[in-house]
Amino acid sequence: MAPKIKDVAKQAGVSVTTVSRVLNGEKYVKDDLKARVKRAIDELGYTPSHIARSLVLKKTNLIGVIVPDITSSFYSTILSTIERTASLNDYNLMVCNILEDTDKELKYLQIFKQMRVDGIIIMHEKFSEEIRELIQSLDIPFLFSSVKPADQQFVSVIIDDYAAAYDATRHLIGLGHSRIGFIGGDMRDVTSGQNRYLGYSNALSDCGIKVEDDYIRFGDYKTQSGYDLMKEILANETRPTAVFAVSDDMAVGAMNGIHDCGLKVPDDLSVIGFDGSQLTEQVRPRLSSMEQPILEMGKVTVDKLLRMIAGNEEEPLNDVILKHKLVVRDSCKAYRDHS
Amino acid sequence: MAPKIKDVAKQAGVSVTTVSRVLNGEKYVKDDLKARVKRAIDELGYTPSHIARSLVLKKTNLIGVIVPDITSSFYSTILSTIERTASLNDYNLMVCNILEDTDKELKYLQIFKQMRVDGIIIMHEKFSEEIRELIQSLDIPFLFSSVKPADQQFVSVIIDDYAAAYDATRHLIGLGHSRIGFIGGDMRDVTSGQNRYLGYSNALSDCGIKVEDDYIRFGDYKTQSGYDLMKEILANETRPTAVFAVSDDMAVGAMNGIHDCGLKVPDDLSVIGFDGSQLTEQVRPRLSSMEQPILEMGKVTVDKLLRMIAGNEEEPLNDVILKHKLVVRDSCKAYRDHS
Repeated sequence: MAPKIKDVAKQAGVSVTTVSRVLNGEKYVKDDLKARVKRAIDELGYTPSHIARSLVLKKTNLIGVIVPDITSSFYSTILSTIERTASLNDYNLMVCNILEDTDKELKYLQIFKQMRVDGIIIMHEKFSEEIRELIQSLDIPFLFSSVKPADQQFVSVIIDDYAAAYDATRHLIGLGHSRIGFIGGDMRDVTSGQNRYLGYSNALSDCGIKVEDDYIRFGDYKTQSGYDLMKEILANETRPTAVFAVSDDMAVGAMNGIHDCGLKVPDDLSVIGFDGSQLTEQVRPRLSSMEQPILEMGKVTVDKLLRMIAGNEEEPLNDVILKHKLVVRDSCKAYRDHS
Repeated sequence: MAPKIKDVAKQAGVSVTTVSRVLNGEKYVKDDLKARVKRAIDELGYTPSHIARSLVLKKTNLIGVIVPDITSSFYSTILSTIERTASLNDYNLMVCNILEDTDKELKYLQIFKQMRVDGIIIMHEKFSEEIRELIQSLDIPFLFSSVKPADQQFVSVIIDDYAAAYDATRHLIGLGHSRIGFIGGDMRDVTSGQNRYLGYSNALSDCGIKVEDDYIRFGDYKTQSGYDLMKEILANETRPTAVFAVSDDMAVGAMNGIHDCGLKVPDDLSVIGFDGSQLTEQVRPRLSSMEQPILEMGKVTVDKLLRMIAGNEEEPLNDVILKHKLVVRDSCKAYRDHS
């Protein structure tokens, strides 16, 4: 039979209220009483019920996290950093994997409310009016990480997707490429898909290169869609000499599509990805990528959420924009027009 | 101000006790009272506090999960299946990523106790006497998934690691290879590292092939260790013609090590992996692998744990052994001795 708070009180020779005050870390408890209670707790092996204590403290030290797909190398990496930072601050995660199912997300947000989580981190690429209304009605601090809903009133920790995509495309142009394919993301709901497309197309236009619809496809950020869409792009009579995919998973799919068509990366086509996940180093040739600062992003997200939870008045409720960085590996090559 | 249980009682014209009995799904509440309470709940938008209710029901519908590394493709895939099965049964996960830190695992197990989780799933590759003692003292149903501690008294959902490694090695021998390298896992704490090594070495012995220590290394299941150890094996004067790595991540590392030494898979060396993670299809050549039934493993784990939580007397407390399966892709080739 597990010892209860009254057993601790009896053992220490104090009242239940005193034990409770010691457990809650209240001031104005005499040192010798504190010592007696602590000794009694040790002797009995008492563990305070998190549930009972959270009713008193109105705090659960839980953070709810919505993630679209835990098997994506980008999300699993950012999640592991979020977990590490939360843990250092004595917060625990409740991770929910929604697989882009907005009904499931609604259900999980309801559960977060019931569980009285202290804060919520949302990473997903789809969005509905119901979810918008629900999260606003929750009265729980929340923020978006790595994505930004089109609705400007929500706080996000994010990179400048437009500038990052612009810079990735300019890198390919700088290598002499002008027929540059594009495998984009979802153009609805969140801004990253749109901004990355705009970055790509404006980089071409700014260099006097025509944007060719035949070289452009939109996928779901996963390997299989990069593979399938690359094959579609390669079916054009004149194929591009380079391709930019807006996730590393899609870029690896594109590399595999190129390989399976009997062509070589980077000799026949250059490929550049986006994210900076560990997959970039796991494939051959190693994938050049426009990298998000994944580790920093997870840390900044948790730090900001904890300040919002603490009710820090000076915490500005605007986006945090982190710096992107081009990491050149082996998948891109200068193009000389020898065809 | 969020409505409270007493507001619901007032709106429905019943006592707080009646509302509480309806919420807890008790029998012997008259149908018209139930209907009035439900209508009042809808009208007020009342959400019962999970915390308050779990104090009454002694049930949190939470499952704690210990995972060694969420960025591993094997663990993220099994985790997503565990999540899906739990969710279908109205259970939620509290996922803790321990990065093989046994102190962190101890801390998380304490938190699971405080949170009063209903059950615990453990997937990790290290083990200490303190963890053994703690989980036994928790009085919470738990089981191991995909790993088995050397201590036979714990329940695991697992494959037959010995037979799977034996079959993988026999596949390479059947292709004509006799100089077969091995990149193994941790030989302490859990049985899979030892059993996979025994499966490998016995398959060689049974075919009259000498086990060569120079061709054998032990890593940590991750890509980088497969890469480094493969390079060590290739430094031998006579190199092997095939290699078996006991995780897909290490096998991909080995493939990259071979590639970076200027050799080709499968022309110069055949490579076979272990697990059946999505990485097998993301690399070129696609990786042949001795696959664990990852999706089934996650589902069976949750189903068994839920029966243990329900206190099903007939639930046998012994291991569940699932079937492994060789999936042949493009990384292995028949060996003809033309050197």
